[in-house]
Amino acid sequence: MAAILAIGDEVLRGEITNTNSTFLAERLFDAGLDVCEQRVVADEAADMRRALEELAHRAAVVVVTGGLGPTEDDRTVDVAAELLGVEAEPHSASLEAMKKRFAAHGFELTPNNLRQVRVPQGAEALPNGAGIAPGFVVHFAGCAIYFLPGIPREMERIYLDHVAPRLRAQMAAQGVPVAAVRTWHVYGMGESHIDHRLAKLLEDIPHATLHFRTDAPENHVKVVIRGSDTAKNQELLGQVDRDLRKRIGAGIYGTDNETFALVVGQALRTSGTTLALAESCTGGEAGQMITSEPGASDFFLGGVVAYSNDVKINVLGVKAATIAESGAVSEPCAKEMAEGARRVTGATIAVSITGVAGPAKERDPSPSGGSDKPVGTVCFALASAKSTKAVSKLFSGDRARIRRAAAYFALDLARRHSQ
Amino acid sequence: MAAILAIGDEVLRGEITNTNSTFLAERLFDAGLDVCEQRVVADEAADMRRALEELAHRAAVVVVTGGLGPTEDDRTVDVAAELLGVEAEPHSASLEAMKKRFAAHGFELTPNNLRQVRVPQGAEALPNGAGIAPGFVVHFAGCAIYFLPGIPREMERIYLDHVAPRLRAQMAAQGVPVAAVRTWHVYGMGESHIDHRLAKLLEDIPHATLHFRTDAPENHVKVVIRGSDTAKNQELLGQVDRDLRKRIGAGIYGTDNETFALVVGQALRTSGTTLALAESCTGGEAGQMITSEPGASDFFLGGVVAYSNDVKINVLGVKAATIAESGAVSEPCAKEMAEGARRVTGATIAVSITGVAGPAKERDPSPSGGSDKPVGTVCFALASAKSTKAVSKLFSGDRARIRRAAAYFALDLARRHSQ
Repeated sequence: MAAILAIGDEVLRGEITNTNSTFLAERLFDAGLDVCEQRVVADEAADMRRALEELAHRAAVVVVTGGLGPTEDDRTVDVAAELLGVEAEPHSASLEAMKKRFAAHGFELTPNNLRQVRVPQGAEALPNGAGIAPGFVVHFAGCAIYFLPGIPREMERIYLDHVAPRLRAQMAAQGVPVAAVRTWHVYGMGESHIDHRLAKLLEDIPHATLHFRTDAPENHVKVVIRGSDTAKNQELLGQVDRDLRKRIGAGIYGTDNETFALVVGQALRTSGTTLALAESCTGGEAGQMITSEPGASDFFLGGVVAYSNDVKINVLGVKAATIAESGAVSEPCAKEMAEGARRVTGATIAVSITGVAGPAKERDPSPSGGSDKPVGTVCFALASAKSTKAVSKLFSGDRARIRRAAAYFALDLARRHSQ
Repeated sequence: MAAILAIGDEVLRGEITNTNSTFLAERLFDAGLDVCEQRVVADEAADMRRALEELAHRAAVVVVTGGLGPTEDDRTVDVAAELLGVEAEPHSASLEAMKKRFAAHGFELTPNNLRQVRVPQGAEALPNGAGIAPGFVVHFAGCAIYFLPGIPREMERIYLDHVAPRLRAQMAAQGVPVAAVRTWHVYGMGESHIDHRLAKLLEDIPHATLHFRTDAPENHVKVVIRGSDTAKNQELLGQVDRDLRKRIGAGIYGTDNETFALVVGQALRTSGTTLALAESCTGGEAGQMITSEPGASDFFLGGVVAYSNDVKINVLGVKAATIAESGAVSEPCAKEMAEGARRVTGATIAVSITGVAGPAKERDPSPSGGSDKPVGTVCFALASAKSTKAVSKLFSGDRARIRRAAAYFALDLARRHSQ
């Protein structure tokens, strides 16, 4: 059992979201430790001490974040030392590193700076590869308590550099096997549909659990196998992978760290396709997405954001008559947008997006707003050397969700064309 | 004192981030209640009960989220009933509403559906304006415990509809004054710089606290005044507002719910300016941002995403010689991009962005990647009827952060031009 304690008034008051605990919870769980509690308390010695005592009695591992900074409000080292009945003292390697760093920048050390390189006597320091304050680990009431800074970048670095390997070693020493974990990323299929297809997926797999997460319009399916044999866990995960791919099919676009933009980009790159975009209601979101991963210049040429009808007509060559007859949110308009984007950029393929992102009260009575179409209506087209094909969708949700769904759908058209 | 308890394995395992607790913490604090603890426990009766008992003894108000759904894993109603020594029973108004809703969709009620409209006997139900399961409030150990669903949309709706008014009434009955709260949004000034300018801002204001939040490239400054006189709190807030605006000046672009896109849009709309964009390294992010608020068609015409040099040359009319001599990431190129975007769209002004978003290892040795410029270098230009002016910036951070900073800077150029 593990527990997570975040220390800090900013989290307690809702000024920042506690993403540190999300990071730690996911990694502890995947490492094979059940997290029994997450807690947030103030930068107050009494509150911190009570939380540490309670959690140390409930869990074998506690990970604490926050309160290791240079100010008087940062009391974590003192509370940890007091809990152990020892003094806090500077960690010499961290002190030397800080001195070097300050000298290089010409900064002067203040007494407060000295505060943040202290650890409790006898504690094992965990060097901070991304900042100044070291983390440290102490043992109390049969529990290993890891203390990490509250700054996410520093916390993550120390966790990955020092805590994760120690937990792995500790669990190996205790004969705890390594869990097999994989996350499949699904696009174009609703959660209930996925759920239905995955019925009894893990029926014959002992010690396996299935977890869903929706990050619209994506769904993520995670499987964790925690059997007693590390090799067997991996073997079973391979079996689950094959079964899951049979059930979900092309809905799975990638796993683990593969983003949608990365996978679309790989399909374009591999097939030697170059892409241009013509965006109306998304305002540039599809272009932003496809360029979010580095290296997009291999296949993405650019495009036109044709928010107004004049830009559709004058830059993309959409016919005024098309807009007058069918509306700007129509398949004929989408086709001419895609063809125009392909023509002006010279790309192998071009994809267009034109729709009504809403909200309803903002719908424009002029043809440009597509007033005769319901909010969520989005028309797409893909133009290639061979043909131009259009398709329409009705997305639900608010403006941001509709636009995001449209950007995904447009990029997915490009991906499917390139496969 | 208030406390927040989230119930749910998904949060505990790090599958979802606990944004519910952030939402509640911020609102409880702004309402004048200090939050002493946030906690997350599993969907296990024993864990839930212990947490409820401990928190009820520490706080006068506890807000609980999660575990009110239809499945057997949703145990919150049963645990609350057991804590009070009563039975759980259907809340008739919620039951009727659910029956109507299911009939309208032609769904059949299952026994599980009946589970989610139950509340403990004697509890006051809090109707769910955004879903099925009602919230409820019970009194235990001198503490008011509010139970809300875990789905954020439903939780927020019930909190705003029923919990916030009850807390206000309760605090008014106790003679607790209403806090005055405002958040100022700052762009173009670092946190340490803001901090320096705000030194002693609240020195003469009793019961006032200052809170920072960075949401790069924005900084948010919040002031909460919790004096004993509601009217006086508002008066003092007005005084702080004037002082703060004097100290920060034009760095403040808006307050509370005003987004950057909204404020840029208002400046363009009010001045009768129409805007076009020419984006390279941002890939469409500035266009996505300016169209994130509805009504952008009043002032935003569109633009060109000129990711490749060919698009810069062929669509925007940038001279090949300019790119050959100065590079694609240069002020001369930025100027020709902005002028081209203005020419092809007919906008009053056009703003261009061309830069090196990184990461370093992805830098392209060809001129298109601007290989001779350090990562983070971004050149901008603003073209109007009168002139074209360019400016260069060096942003730090990863690819996403550099691109976001560039999109903000480009839109800010348009805002400042329109003021």
